[in-house]
Amino acid sequence: MNEETEPVSYVLTMTCPDRTGIVAAASGCLSDLGCFMTEASYFADPETVTFFGRQVFHITDPNMDIDGVRAGFGAIAKKFQMNWRLHEQNAKTKLLIMVTRAEHCLNDILYRYRSGTLNADIPAIVSNHPDLKPLADWHDIPFHHLPVTRETKAEQEARVLELFRNSGADYLVLARYMQVLSTEMCDKLSGRAINIHHSFLPGFKGAKPYHQAHARGVKLIGATAHFVTQDLDEGPIIEQQVQRVDHTYTPEDLAAVGRETESQVLSRALGYLTEHRVLPNGSRTVVFR
Amino acid sequence: MNEETEPVSYVLTMTCPDRTGIVAAASGCLSDLGCFMTEASYFADPETVTFFGRQVFHITDPNMDIDGVRAGFGAIAKKFQMNWRLHEQNAKTKLLIMVTRAEHCLNDILYRYRSGTLNADIPAIVSNHPDLKPLADWHDIPFHHLPVTRETKAEQEARVLELFRNSGADYLVLARYMQVLSTEMCDKLSGRAINIHHSFLPGFKGAKPYHQAHARGVKLIGATAHFVTQDLDEGPIIEQQVQRVDHTYTPEDLAAVGRETESQVLSRALGYLTEHRVLPNGSRTVVFR
Amino acid sequence: MNEETEPVSYVLTMTCPDRTGIVAAASGCLSDLGCFMTEASYFADPETVTFFGRQVFHITDPNMDIDGVRAGFGAIAKKFQMNWRLHEQNAKTKLLIMVTRAEHCLNDILYRYRSGTLNADIPAIVSNHPDLKPLADWHDIPFHHLPVTRETKAEQEARVLELFRNSGADYLVLARYMQVLSTEMCDKLSGRAINIHHSFLPGFKGAKPYHQAHARGVKLIGATAHFVTQDLDEGPIIEQQVQRVDHTYTPEDLAAVGRETESQVLSRALGYLTEHRVLPNGSRTVVFR
Amino acid sequence: MNEETEPVSYVLTMTCPDRTGIVAAASGCLSDLGCFMTEASYFADPETVTFFGRQVFHITDPNMDIDGVRAGFGAIAKKFQMNWRLHEQNAKTKLLIMVTRAEHCLNDILYRYRSGTLNADIPAIVSNHPDLKPLADWHDIPFHHLPVTRETKAEQEARVLELFRNSGADYLVLARYMQVLSTEMCDKLSGRAINIHHSFLPGFKGAKPYHQAHARGVKLIGATAHFVTQDLDEGPIIEQQVQRVDHTYTPEDLAAVGRETESQVLSRALGYLTEHRVLPNGSRTVVFR
Repeated sequence: MNEETEPVSYVLTMTCPDRTGIVAAASGCLSDLGCFMTEASYFADPETVTFFGRQVFHITDPNMDIDGVRAGFGAIAKKFQMNWRLHEQNAKTKLLIMVTRAEHCLNDILYRYRSGTLNADIPAIVSNHPDLKPLADWHDIPFHHLPVTRETKAEQEARVLELFRNSGADYLVLARYMQVLSTEMCDKLSGRAINIHHSFLPGFKGAKPYHQAHARGVKLIGATAHFVTQDLDEGPIIEQQVQRVDHTYTPEDLAAVGRETESQVLSRALGYLTEHRVLPNGSRTVVFR
Repeated sequence: MNEETEPVSYVLTMTCPDRTGIVAAASGCLSDLGCFMTEASYFADPETVTFFGRQVFHITDPNMDIDGVRAGFGAIAKKFQMNWRLHEQNAKTKLLIMVTRAEHCLNDILYRYRSGTLNADIPAIVSNHPDLKPLADWHDIPFHHLPVTRETKAEQEARVLELFRNSGADYLVLARYMQVLSTEMCDKLSGRAINIHHSFLPGFKGAKPYHQAHARGVKLIGATAHFVTQDLDEGPIIEQQVQRVDHTYTPEDLAAVGRETESQVLSRALGYLTEHRVLPNGSRTVVFR
Repeated sequence: MNEETEPVSYVLTMTCPDRTGIVAAASGCLSDLGCFMTEASYFADPETVTFFGRQVFHITDPNMDIDGVRAGFGAIAKKFQMNWRLHEQNAKTKLLIMVTRAEHCLNDILYRYRSGTLNADIPAIVSNHPDLKPLADWHDIPFHHLPVTRETKAEQEARVLELFRNSGADYLVLARYMQVLSTEMCDKLSGRAINIHHSFLPGFKGAKPYHQAHARGVKLIGATAHFVTQDLDEGPIIEQQVQRVDHTYTPEDLAAVGRETESQVLSRALGYLTEHRVLPNGSRTVVFR
Repeated sequence: MNEETEPVSYVLTMTCPDRTGIVAAASGCLSDLGCFMTEASYFADPETVTFFGRQVFHITDPNMDIDGVRAGFGAIAKKFQMNWRLHEQNAKTKLLIMVTRAEHCLNDILYRYRSGTLNADIPAIVSNHPDLKPLADWHDIPFHHLPVTRETKAEQEARVLELFRNSGADYLVLARYMQVLSTEMCDKLSGRAINIHHSFLPGFKGAKPYHQAHARGVKLIGATAHFVTQDLDEGPIIEQQVQRVDHTYTPEDLAAVGRETESQVLSRALGYLTEHRVLPNGSRTVVFR
């Protein structure tokens, strides 16, 4: 295929109260506007009576442009009370990353970032410890060492939030950031902050999950990527995965298995986010795959 | 929920050359006909430029019935050169089962059949050996013992085909039927016959796959459910699965693991078929999940 | 191989305080007694300083018999304060099964039982409901309908215990028996009663786990086979497994996935038990595979 | 635990013709020499009548040292015609890595190397292309750009072999090195060279496996780590893994899934090798886990 003339693709996501005719209206509108859909996924949650959709399309009508599509679809969106977003498919999602000292998740994200596997920009990496600065430096990503104590927490979070806003970040990614965000911070970043939890939630909430898992003698070790909410470890789940272990695993062995699982689950969740596949649904998520 | 007033749901599947506006037309048509879609999946294969769709809906307009929908949609289908089918969602799919002596797949199918997990009717079970008759009897399913030799193969297949047609079966399921169907039989049942292959195709085609797998020292054992075609073990794949094994497994152990995998894969494939989720796509399949 | 002259194999399991020389003594003793080991697994738990072992062997010395081995090994066992058991490998493990109404686990067990995949005898099936009697009848297994109310619980459990003892059962298997055993019953059957829990413990303890899982929006559904203890859902875990689900699954769909997982996990755990691979280790288990 | 006084652990692996008394002799010898075993795994292959063992131990007798153990065990080893090796458990395994341009496997290995997850030293990285030099540089690992053409192949391989020998490397790791080694090279490195194959062998041997996989419409994508032999893609398998895919995956998507699987499988295989868990068994392997 001639890459120069490859058309620009767009991803349109939408959430609205469910009723008759949404798919017809949403897809018909794009069709009428001279767009060609290459992917379409819809889901109606019977419990919350909410409709979710994701449409990927490009413009085939030479007389139409994306502003025209935006305007045209806006009318439909208004009629159906849609919460909707329109993204250029190749545009990079901006991820502000927070870490402490553990490197495994950051390393996996940075590999995908520099190899282009993860369609993301990383405007900055923030940490309460300086350990991972060399890794950030090698990738030419600004590294902000913002230590945090009980006394300075409000101030530190204010600086993180400032970085988030100034950089135009789409998501704040807690890639093994070993601090709990304040309630205010959670509220301000509602739906925009992602955490990787080192257990197969809802099992083993709280501290030292691998020691808990060892004491309980589980046969599988898991990890959970979820949106951050005030209720620690209770945010909407984006992705989970497990690996098999057995009686020979020490807590340290379980932690090593866990690190692999955490890296994979977080990177997979970020992949879904950068492809605009994740739509919040109350305490749950819709993930179109 | 009041089951008596639960509306009747329908599943509409469609395949056609891809072009602009199919989703809009197909979903818009249903909407205009007074139908409410509860599930919708679409896929456009860029390689074959073919469009595939599956829509689940019920009728909300009290003045409309399914014949009206059928007529109304027929016009759209014609316009887009669709190959389409309309099923009542709760209507049972008819599966004619063929077995030899191995019981594991049949047992799994019959459990799902009698517990209602598999939305299927089983008009008859055919075998070239009498061993599994008691199992069929206990389920009150007619059992036809049709031995086969090289000389009687044509005649035996003719009787199977007769059974298939007279019973109105939707699919012929080779649930560890250890005979190769003739080319003629394959052609007559094209897209209607399913086989479970005891390997993770395309590895280990042909006979004694577990001995092959043991000799090769593989670390995973798999099974493949696929449509039957003339090219043995080359039909479009519907579902595959593997299980982990290690150096301690004898060929018999591998076969035991394989039997579990075969049962699960075949039953899962039959589940997809009875829910009208499988659409052939040349040598491949689209499976909407 | 000539099956008639195939030697009889034995499985010896042992647990004792860990110290130097156990493997040497245990394997050396068998060797000195004219036995040939075909499998051997050992594990020393550094936390509890406990040694676990499993040895499979047959007698090659024509002047030795199993009573001689038992006596000879007894001396070693005494020296190391071993808790040990000696089983003929082909001898069937006796499983007394308890069910309520759900058939999926029982069906899977009975298939393995009648096909010989599970090396077990089933002296009886007990239920507080009559629904599964036909399935038991077809397998020629005595079915005891023992209803239970708060008032009759003690009496009912006494009858179950009587059945357990009179039948010489090795294990009581709660194959979706929807009643909590009394503390007394748990104590009397300590290490001899197995339960299948319909969640990936420790997540979703208690009632309606699939509704809990749905509300929490998990992306994996699991099941756990464990020894029964007084602390409900807290007994030592024998086996666990998960399957992937997504946002489209209703609680009923999750339950259907769960049923498959439950059957597989319970049958796998029973396989380990009948092969004498499971050794309790406090609140955990050692499972030699 | 006090790390300073933590005893030094050793891993002893052994392969020999199977006969009575090997476990007793091998474990008894260590016990008699004043050693305490913390792990022991044995496997007797009934087909090849070969015995495999792995014992982890430390010396508890203050009057014994590892040279004494080596001498003492040597006598036993001779008696049983053992092929045996004795490693200090914490000693790093030396891996000479070869790559071409693809970074995913190398990145994963280097992360594990620098974080200590993989107990390995990497004396050098060799490539026929210069692309990955910056990654090697950042890790302070010598990078040798050794281009290869048909004419220079013998010479290039001679230089690789020289590097291998001079660096005292234990294994040559082909981490997506897109060149076939010559027969001579394979012979010289027999049992010492590891390759990652981008398919679930024996399926999709040869070139463009992901395009093959796409054309065949498989539902799982896999990768295989194996010893390198003259028969391309036929060496003894060390580890395999798969990931689920569906009809929406393009060949490029399959390749991306494949890259993840390749990295994981190769790193897992290298973990087994550095822990001395892999013993060749003809065309297969024993992997003690």
